[in-house]
Amino acid sequence: MKTFQAEIDVMPKKEILDPQGKAVTGSMKNLGLAEIQNIRIGKHISLQIEAESEQIASEKVEQACKSLLANLIMESYTFKIEQL
Amino acid sequence: MKTFQAEIDVMPKKEILDPQGKAVTGSMKNLGLAEIQNIRIGKHISLQIEAESEQIASEKVEQACKSLLANLIMESYTFKIEQL
Repeated sequence: MKTFQAEIDVMPKKEILDPQGKAVTGSMKNLGLAEIQNIRIGKHISLQIEAESEQIASEKVEQACKSLLANLIMESYTFKIEQL
Repeated sequence: MKTFQAEIDVMPKKEILDPQGKAVTGSMKNLGLAEIQNIRIGKHISLQIEAESEQIASEKVEQACKSLLANLIMESYTFKIEQL
């Protein structure tokens, strides 16, 4: 068995309003950082997984994203896997 | 002025307990994914920034992280910048 590290980003879909990001974009102005725009805030998830190959690890991470980590109605996910 | 895209990860520091990650690690077992371990959950932030150079953009993102996006007592951040 090999150990892999997965780094997953779960972001609100583009069509969906992101009120937290909007609020933070507004706060940037008050900090004198008005050149920062279009902030969107999601989740970053790191995890370790034991599997026989990178492909199996990738399938398991996919399954974890679909069933628990992301709400596919409102969020989309991307991830990277590397062997430790 | 050029436009840059920044992708920022804000994660709980290693020394700090991550109760959300612990809870999700427990749920993985119930989903039949017991090979997934050490889940840690933080924030992923994407934003756009206008600046004259990549170095200036990087400094502004650094400033935004320190003053608003990350709580440096409990969290650490990393980011990547690319020109659009």
